[in-house]
Amino acid sequence: MTNASIATYTIEALSSIRQTAPLIHNITNYVVMNSSANILLALGASPVMAHCRDEVEEMVSYAGALVLNIGTLQPDWIEAMIIAGKAANKKGVPVILDPVGAGATRLRTDAVNTIMRECQITVLRGNASEILSLRSANIKTKGVDSSLELADEMVDVAQAMAQEMKCVIAISGPEDCITDGQRVFRVGNGQPLMTKVTGSGCGLSAVVGAFCATDRSDAAKATAAAFGYYGLCGDLAIEVSDRPGSFAVAFIDQLYATSNEQITERLKVRAS
Amino acid sequence: MTNASIATYTIEALSSIRQTAPLIHNITNYVVMNSSANILLALGASPVMAHCRDEVEEMVSYAGALVLNIGTLQPDWIEAMIIAGKAANKKGVPVILDPVGAGATRLRTDAVNTIMRECQITVLRGNASEILSLRSANIKTKGVDSSLELADEMVDVAQAMAQEMKCVIAISGPEDCITDGQRVFRVGNGQPLMTKVTGSGCGLSAVVGAFCATDRSDAAKATAAAFGYYGLCGDLAIEVSDRPGSFAVAFIDQLYATSNEQITERLKVRAS
Amino acid sequence: MTNASIATYTIEALSSIRQTAPLIHNITNYVVMNSSANILLALGASPVMAHCRDEVEEMVSYAGALVLNIGTLQPDWIEAMIIAGKAANKKGVPVILDPVGAGATRLRTDAVNTIMRECQITVLRGNASEILSLRSANIKTKGVDSSLELADEMVDVAQAMAQEMKCVIAISGPEDCITDGQRVFRVGNGQPLMTKVTGSGCGLSAVVGAFCATDRSDAAKATAAAFGYYGLCGDLAIEVSDRPGSFAVAFIDQLYATSNEQITERLKVRAS
Repeated sequence: MTNASIATYTIEALSSIRQTAPLIHNITNYVVMNSSANILLALGASPVMAHCRDEVEEMVSYAGALVLNIGTLQPDWIEAMIIAGKAANKKGVPVILDPVGAGATRLRTDAVNTIMRECQITVLRGNASEILSLRSANIKTKGVDSSLELADEMVDVAQAMAQEMKCVIAISGPEDCITDGQRVFRVGNGQPLMTKVTGSGCGLSAVVGAFCATDRSDAAKATAAAFGYYGLCGDLAIEVSDRPGSFAVAFIDQLYATSNEQITERLKVRAS
Repeated sequence: MTNASIATYTIEALSSIRQTAPLIHNITNYVVMNSSANILLALGASPVMAHCRDEVEEMVSYAGALVLNIGTLQPDWIEAMIIAGKAANKKGVPVILDPVGAGATRLRTDAVNTIMRECQITVLRGNASEILSLRSANIKTKGVDSSLELADEMVDVAQAMAQEMKCVIAISGPEDCITDGQRVFRVGNGQPLMTKVTGSGCGLSAVVGAFCATDRSDAAKATAAAFGYYGLCGDLAIEVSDRPGSFAVAFIDQLYATSNEQITERLKVRAS
Repeated sequence: MTNASIATYTIEALSSIRQTAPLIHNITNYVVMNSSANILLALGASPVMAHCRDEVEEMVSYAGALVLNIGTLQPDWIEAMIIAGKAANKKGVPVILDPVGAGATRLRTDAVNTIMRECQITVLRGNASEILSLRSANIKTKGVDSSLELADEMVDVAQAMAQEMKCVIAISGPEDCITDGQRVFRVGNGQPLMTKVTGSGCGLSAVVGAFCATDRSDAAKATAAAFGYYGLCGDLAIEVSDRPGSFAVAFIDQLYATSNEQITERLKVRAS
């Protein structure tokens, strides 16, 4: 697949999001509830945050995608995530899982393993140390930030994990890597300054949900498009400001306003 | 009442908020706690967020208004809302209820009905589908956004609800409608882009609380002034930016800095 | 100590934060989780928010400082704060306590007293009425804002409290006051507009954590440097905007970008 065809795919997916405003049901952490909602709104989707076990099944029935995120975790939220995840599975609603801080504490690592045992995840998105912590217990993450560079061997691991877990593995890094176990998409868009704005990664997981809502047949390609568009908005925002406060504002503006021409010219997604 | 007299009323209410900084006690959802606090601070009020049943009664005793909001609901919060609501009723503190997502899930619809059975609400503020869902079970909302246009027949329904519930019904929409069952205020200020910033509606409910704190004798007029001022700040902010990130920043600036002249010239509130 | 030597100390502490990115473990209120994380990221530190009793001990083991904040309090959070505080004490990790709203409700005053009985706090940071409420029950705060001006007699009280509690007492006000019971640091940086941005005080407590992480031997001096730098960023941000929305954005930018020259020229910290 050439870069051009992915650009076209991204333009069409974005257009679909903006026209249909799919409801994205988030069970996410307190830190990013506001920023993820604003990111989804700027993108054109319709966010809802709802975590109570008494309503998640009903809420997910309206949803185009379900986004689970284990930051600021409490045990009763895990239960709600599983109820929502099972309901999503029944209805064919894509489920995105963001394993924030997996590997840093046992609670988080165990939570991800429990959720993945009970529900079929469509896309697992995190940084390298979070994702790799779910394969073996040998790699510790320092809090919620990645301590590993994305290298070729990591791509191999990601492919093996995708095959084992039967889901898309999406790793954020200097170059992002998305794989369904067969195809590998590499994304060159994005800026280091995004790591200086809290919730950048969590917001990307939400955006992956919105793109997956527009294409249930190819979650890997939809995820690659989401990564490309999100990173491109970062590339355009940094031309407005290279400081994190005003960069974050410009980034939201850009999610709302990036044109098809800018996608065609500057999207850096390549498939192999 | 002419537009001019409502403008004068709005100017006086705003001046009172800025001089007395009434404490607005919010029991609200996680998504908007930060944005609602910033909105109230920019307006000149003094926000406090407190939801623990062990302290809400004490906290509401200092308050000029109590704002209840059922987004990201959990059952134990409903209990705290009722304790706070009853305490507010005893002391004559106005109670604003924002039924976020009512009609979308049974938990939320039931919660509003329970709260309204236990406490006397002063103002019920939401979008059309949320408000209407509380009258009959036939209208479903898609998540938290309105799926209904505000039409003349809706005004009739709102009036009937206000009479039945003995409270002000305030419906946000392309043209807002506020009624106490007798008078109807229509507000033409406001921008569609406000729906692309999360918490715009919830923030308005908080601002209604601040205006009601300045006039316990006429909650409908205070609510109309709040809607007018809030929408006017949106009208002025969009002249700074038509993209949601920088628009949201300009909107906060505008809540802080809108002048009496701008209110006199551009407030669009008419009573009938 | 002269102003110049404190400026040098501040520059070195800031440089250390930017180079080592210490993990700052926050158990803080819902309102400010996002803003405190962004403040710490812009400063150069690495924030994590984690409040579940099942993981706080593990999380604090990676931390350079622990920041406890009692806004939006629930009883089970107090327990997690104590577990985390004890673990921090064992490892010599500095513990910052922000007694948001102490004096306003019994829940909050009692919570602070319980935490301080169970854990050794390194720095207690709040506004005057919050801090003073912890000495005697006679002073009530109105919600979470200070109702007291910082006067000379308050400095005496702060010194007595610092000696009694064996911790640094840090009081925010028109002129800030930091004391370990012996030395007193007064900080003249900072802007009144900061009180119109929610979480400004809570964010400062987090920044105190980051500075204390770089100097475990002198928490009073580290706290004074944190106050000076934070206030200086406010002084520089107000030159960009005197309205709260855009001021808040400029403030984050400034935390990221303030130069050593600006610190040398404009830091207003004096020791006595």
